[in-house]
Amino acid sequence: MTKTDIATRVYNHAFKLDPIIRSLIDTDFYKLLMLQMIWKLYPQTDATFSLINRTTRVRLADEIDEGELRDQLDYARSLRLTKKEMIWLAGNTFYGRKQIFEPEFLTWLAAYQLPEYELSKRDGQYELTFHGRWVDTTMWEIPALAIINELRSRAALRSLGYFTLDVIYARAKAKMWEKVQRLRELPGLRISDFGTRRRHSFLWQRWCVEALKEGIGPGFTGTSNVLLAMDSDLEAVGTNAHELPMVMAALADTDDELRAAPYNIMKDWNRLYGGNLLIALPDAFGTAAFLRDAPEWVADWTGFRPDSAPPIEGGEKIIEWWQKMGRDPRQKLLIFSDGLDVDAIIDTYRHFEGRVRMSFGWGTNLTNDFMGCAPTAIDGLNPISVVCKVSDANGRPAVKLSDNPHKATGEPSEVQRYLKIFGQEDRVEQAVLV
Amino acid sequence: MTKTDIATRVYNHAFKLDPIIRSLIDTDFYKLLMLQMIWKLYPQTDATFSLINRTTRVRLADEIDEGELRDQLDYARSLRLTKKEMIWLAGNTFYGRKQIFEPEFLTWLAAYQLPEYELSKRDGQYELTFHGRWVDTTMWEIPALAIINELRSRAALRSLGYFTLDVIYARAKAKMWEKVQRLRELPGLRISDFGTRRRHSFLWQRWCVEALKEGIGPGFTGTSNVLLAMDSDLEAVGTNAHELPMVMAALADTDDELRAAPYNIMKDWNRLYGGNLLIALPDAFGTAAFLRDAPEWVADWTGFRPDSAPPIEGGEKIIEWWQKMGRDPRQKLLIFSDGLDVDAIIDTYRHFEGRVRMSFGWGTNLTNDFMGCAPTAIDGLNPISVVCKVSDANGRPAVKLSDNPHKATGEPSEVQRYLKIFGQEDRVEQAVLV
Repeated sequence: MTKTDIATRVYNHAFKLDPIIRSLIDTDFYKLLMLQMIWKLYPQTDATFSLINRTTRVRLADEIDEGELRDQLDYARSLRLTKKEMIWLAGNTFYGRKQIFEPEFLTWLAAYQLPEYELSKRDGQYELTFHGRWVDTTMWEIPALAIINELRSRAALRSLGYFTLDVIYARAKAKMWEKVQRLRELPGLRISDFGTRRRHSFLWQRWCVEALKEGIGPGFTGTSNVLLAMDSDLEAVGTNAHELPMVMAALADTDDELRAAPYNIMKDWNRLYGGNLLIALPDAFGTAAFLRDAPEWVADWTGFRPDSAPPIEGGEKIIEWWQKMGRDPRQKLLIFSDGLDVDAIIDTYRHFEGRVRMSFGWGTNLTNDFMGCAPTAIDGLNPISVVCKVSDANGRPAVKLSDNPHKATGEPSEVQRYLKIFGQEDRVEQAVLV
Repeated sequence: MTKTDIATRVYNHAFKLDPIIRSLIDTDFYKLLMLQMIWKLYPQTDATFSLINRTTRVRLADEIDEGELRDQLDYARSLRLTKKEMIWLAGNTFYGRKQIFEPEFLTWLAAYQLPEYELSKRDGQYELTFHGRWVDTTMWEIPALAIINELRSRAALRSLGYFTLDVIYARAKAKMWEKVQRLRELPGLRISDFGTRRRHSFLWQRWCVEALKEGIGPGFTGTSNVLLAMDSDLEAVGTNAHELPMVMAALADTDDELRAAPYNIMKDWNRLYGGNLLIALPDAFGTAAFLRDAPEWVADWTGFRPDSAPPIEGGEKIIEWWQKMGRDPRQKLLIFSDGLDVDAIIDTYRHFEGRVRMSFGWGTNLTNDFMGCAPTAIDGLNPISVVCKVSDANGRPAVKLSDNPHKATGEPSEVQRYLKIFGQEDRVEQAVLV
């Protein structure tokens, strides 16, 4: 006879809401580092975050039920930091440093709640916007994206039978493990999970992270997901993001101030954090412009995270710059994190091996690769390029140029103004898949 | 870290319908025996079955969602006998007899589908009616009741948390096991499961049946549930029900025919089945009248199933009758099946021990006893007295008098006519709990 745990079954089948975000630290670690800086230095600055689906063929508002989306967003708003999370944030060592979060910041964080959201539909897309203080709105980026992406997977899987589901996950696991086996052949590889925002689902991300931990061993250097880092005893990794130079640039009153904005925010960062956390993100307004205008002290930072240039060309430009500045690239760190798949990781690793320290932040292709796993192709399982970006700061429009024009955001007239100031050098159009 | 089977979880949470009835043989065995007789002898007779909730304080139409009820009824209508079920029905030995079902009957049964239903609401109750040929409508009795009862349990459990559910089932299991331990002390006890129609749920019935199998051993003589008998390798038990004399009585043209109806249908039964299947059900129009008017050959039948008189008094009357007819009660069988709990089983067993062969058909108190199991009392978990009875045959009203006036069914004027013919002797009012 078949044995069934009746209580579990009754519970499962009476499910009302299966929350996607169940913890405020189910987010990227860099959000917490940036949050502390915003809380300390820019507590009165307003910043609006907006959802942008760059994969316009996918009509999110048709695929995802609005009621379910609201339920998930509302549930996320009901969350508060738990005691366990507080104690762990206060007591854990991050990047080798104890008490990276000030007690006053943690006290403030203990009462933190995700702020209100505005949601409407237009042309088959959701317009999801978060207005308010930067220190409040910034925390929506990751949960909003994780909710959108997981609701989309759920909708795609909803009509499938049990065995189809079982086979889809079995194939995805087998596929993932082949990647692990290929990566294991790179002796000095350092790789971490950056896949929270566009993951297939929380449980799948957790599986992938645990699989990397077991499969790659010490070369798996951690996860950007704070909750998974805590639960799986991994390093929480990540430093800062484009929103810092973007807000600073939006607040600039003159062209000179605009030009100086990316470096000024780095000075702020340096006041708060040091050492391994000194990772420059050069592509907000184009890497060429960033390097051209960079002050000497930027070369003293630990490394760079090229995030939109093709990895080999982008890395070479930065190495060339370090050499020009008289620094030894072998002491420096490049963190690659833009839409990486295993081939790109292997090619990049082989290319730079021995010439520079490297680390890979593996995102969507780690936590949301179901290509070829469904018996018949299900478009809803293919990841999309959806982001949640600062759209204005204190009422002024925010802009990102990026090294890839397809990743630029902002009003067209403002983008033109920025291009006039920073130039177009080395910007290369590449398809944006994720 | 926590391990979760992702496919199972995704499947569970995307559940649309959790069918209550998943097999046409998830029904009582006596329905199949009666069905073969109806198919053979009364294929053109019409019979309407109607749901009757005798527990009027429970407003079923408020507790059970109409859409869910229709989905479950519709799902049951989509079922057909499977090959495995056909082969088992054809090849299995029932009551020591091979091929109890004729090949032509099984061929007809292979194409059988539950007929249409009529559903409406009145005064907080569902009016659920099955019109058509007796050979079609009779099969609705058990699934209709099982659906109503399980939907009611589900509604009662829906809002509970996981641990509450886990504790409810844990307590119900502990409670059930105490009953098993008490019953184990009766050395020659023969008991079987009659609890399909008013079960808490299919899975709970299965648990109870398996628990009795393990706990009582050979004294557990089987289950009335054909599916569970097949899956758990148990005897399928049960013979016939009130619908046989009720339809015959409704079809009678004269008072004499009416008086003869209960015995005429027994002659039909005897033509088809014999031996252990010759169990008389004496209470359709009162046991006293049945015994008073019974022909000599009724005393040759294997036994009686008193179903509404108090078990000890009812049994004594039958034993007295056997003795009057010159039969040795120790060769005869009494099957008790009316709302038994463990106390009644033990008292009855002790009372008749050594004087008559006995068997107990344990129903609702076996498969739906959650009294005291919920942390706070949940009325929706208390079983109700709901039945699905023949209400007319070929357009003529059907009546059941029973030994307990609370269990009588039929139009009041017809009930009066029947009482005039059969008399009121020995009818005793008892509360009907289940």
